Amino acid sequence: MAIQTKPRKFLNDPADVVKESLAGLAAAHGDLLRYDRAAQIIVCKDAPRAGKVALVSGGGSGHEPLHGGFVGRGMLDAACPGEVFTSPVPDQMLAATKAVDGGAGVVHIVKNYTGDVLNFKMAAEDAADDGIRVASVVIDDDVAVQDSLYTAGRRGVGATVLAEKIAGAAAEKGASLDKVADTVKRVNERARSFGVALSSCVPPASGKPIFELPEGEIELGIGIHGEPGRRRAALGSASEVVDVMVEAVISDLKARAGSQVLAFVNGMGGTPQLELYLLYGEVDRKLRAAGVVPVRNLVGSYITSLEMAGASLTVLQLDDELTELWDAPVHTPALRWGV
Amino acid sequence: MAIQTKPRKFLNDPADVVKESLAGLAAAHGDLLRYDRAAQIIVCKDAPRAGKVALVSGGGSGHEPLHGGFVGRGMLDAACPGEVFTSPVPDQMLAATKAVDGGAGVVHIVKNYTGDVLNFKMAAEDAADDGIRVASVVIDDDVAVQDSLYTAGRRGVGATVLAEKIAGAAAEKGASLDKVADTVKRVNERARSFGVALSSCVPPASGKPIFELPEGEIELGIGIHGEPGRRRAALGSASEVVDVMVEAVISDLKARAGSQVLAFVNGMGGTPQLELYLLYGEVDRKLRAAGVVPVRNLVGSYITSLEMAGASLTVLQLDDELTELWDAPVHTPALRWGV
Repeated sequence: MAIQTKPRKFLNDPADVVKESLAGLAAAHGDLLRYDRAAQIIVCKDAPRAGKVALVSGGGSGHEPLHGGFVGRGMLDAACPGEVFTSPVPDQMLAATKAVDGGAGVVHIVKNYTGDVLNFKMAAEDAADDGIRVASVVIDDDVAVQDSLYTAGRRGVGATVLAEKIAGAAAEKGASLDKVADTVKRVNERARSFGVALSSCVPPASGKPIFELPEGEIELGIGIHGEPGRRRAALGSASEVVDVMVEAVISDLKARAGSQVLAFVNGMGGTPQLELYLLYGEVDRKLRAAGVVPVRNLVGSYITSLEMAGASLTVLQLDDELTELWDAPVHTPALRWGV
Repeated sequence: MAIQTKPRKFLNDPADVVKESLAGLAAAHGDLLRYDRAAQIIVCKDAPRAGKVALVSGGGSGHEPLHGGFVGRGMLDAACPGEVFTSPVPDQMLAATKAVDGGAGVVHIVKNYTGDVLNFKMAAEDAADDGIRVASVVIDDDVAVQDSLYTAGRRGVGATVLAEKIAGAAAEKGASLDKVADTVKRVNERARSFGVALSSCVPPASGKPIFELPEGEIELGIGIHGEPGRRRAALGSASEVVDVMVEAVISDLKARAGSQVLAFVNGMGGTPQLELYLLYGEVDRKLRAAGVVPVRNLVGSYITSLEMAGASLTVLQLDDELTELWDAPVHTPALRWGV
């Protein structure tokens, strides 16, 4: 297979891709957020809001709309974007924490990657030194592998989106720091994910695929940075692929029969919506056959790996409180309803 | 370049991809719409609504979320999806028209492709025979080429999304058949688009790219089915590409200096959001430099060509009425605000 010598991308200087994209996000959504170029963070326009618990997340770029696209009302108060597939630094996290603390404390939502976890830990300690109360919760919902290239323990993937939405709604309703942090934890504990890839993505800096997947093969259990999954296999039908995804998620979730769930079919960036809805049809049917009932769903590319072709399934076991928080109004660039 | 022998896609039988995707859309959004499998149409759940003018659009599949993803409240009442890149047949259009007519008439929004125009014309005549008043408006906003492989005259592209939203809001407010049709016409007259491609897409049935674009080249003026544009050129920087797009659109639009516009940066399906917002930043800046002011924007993949890497720019010259209709509530799978 030919390696592209020039990436097929809209770029100026590849070193500036993240900064320029964040500037564009702020230009498009100035009613919701601002880009602090010096601190390299995206901040909700009306932050800090006195008395409201604030939510901060962040991680490497290349997963858009995660996280900057989820800053606004009813979700994140700030996002710290690193370079592509690279953890942000503690200074960004500290700046974001200071920018959004309204006196009620700040929840850090941290995907379980070694760099992110370490850096958020340092930022939380620094914030505490400055008198800001911080509660950190690590997301590790990916059932594909126990440890990975970049993690001790499971990786944090699709549940991050759901936790940000649901805990953001709790904070909007006036929940305490402990309660908001507990809501993130509950979403993480009740959610499981599994992803598959049909192609690599191409990071802008290198312009080269980060792995090679021979024609007709699929990587089962892929991570969001192209980290290897459980195994490669011949690419079967969509129905067969969904069988693997549903089995992996449901067997680990151990949901009681008849449980109400939110089913999140996520595109990795390069899979067209035509296919994502085809997958959702299979997921919906197979979840019901497995004894759980998808009463809410989300279908689209929300936590991506640049232009990777692939998809992930996240299943969240709902209860009345989580359902109500999911349904609550949200207004961000990438998720919006009720307002 | 190697031709893939097996498409990197989530598929069961390639012949069923559209049907299965529509079934998935309906499974995910049963609160908004239903899939009539026999008639092969997507219909708003509460259609027909007595006294409301109804909007129907349709065309080949592979452009999702267009059109099925825009069925709901405040936008389309029904969509007729053909096979991938293939016009729907008149029977689908007639069935959709009958399903949504609430006595106030039906507007057909037709993208300017020969098959679509002919088939919608036949359906409108048949509907008239059944006593349904139909007004048809053809969208032809693409400034790239005067005629093309599939059109006499300009192609209909991004303005379709804006017309469906804006005219849908007019219908929701109780506008007459003439007024709703006139609103579609006004959007079309005041909008211009220009698209570029960095790669081909791969239709599911053939599993092969529909054109070859050598490494490091860009197709300027691409259509949404891979139809050739104005020319191929060396892929320059994002800034240079946006210069071409903005110049093509603005020189044709002839907007008065200081005009307020809606700027729509659309992804073709395979371009990550990281790049789309980078493009939006360039577009916003260059439009202002060209003397028009983007007071509204839309950034995302709304009228796609499967997984083609590329983007299009649509600029709509607003007035107070169009702005108010754009801002009005909408609730569809792909566009939602105010509700």
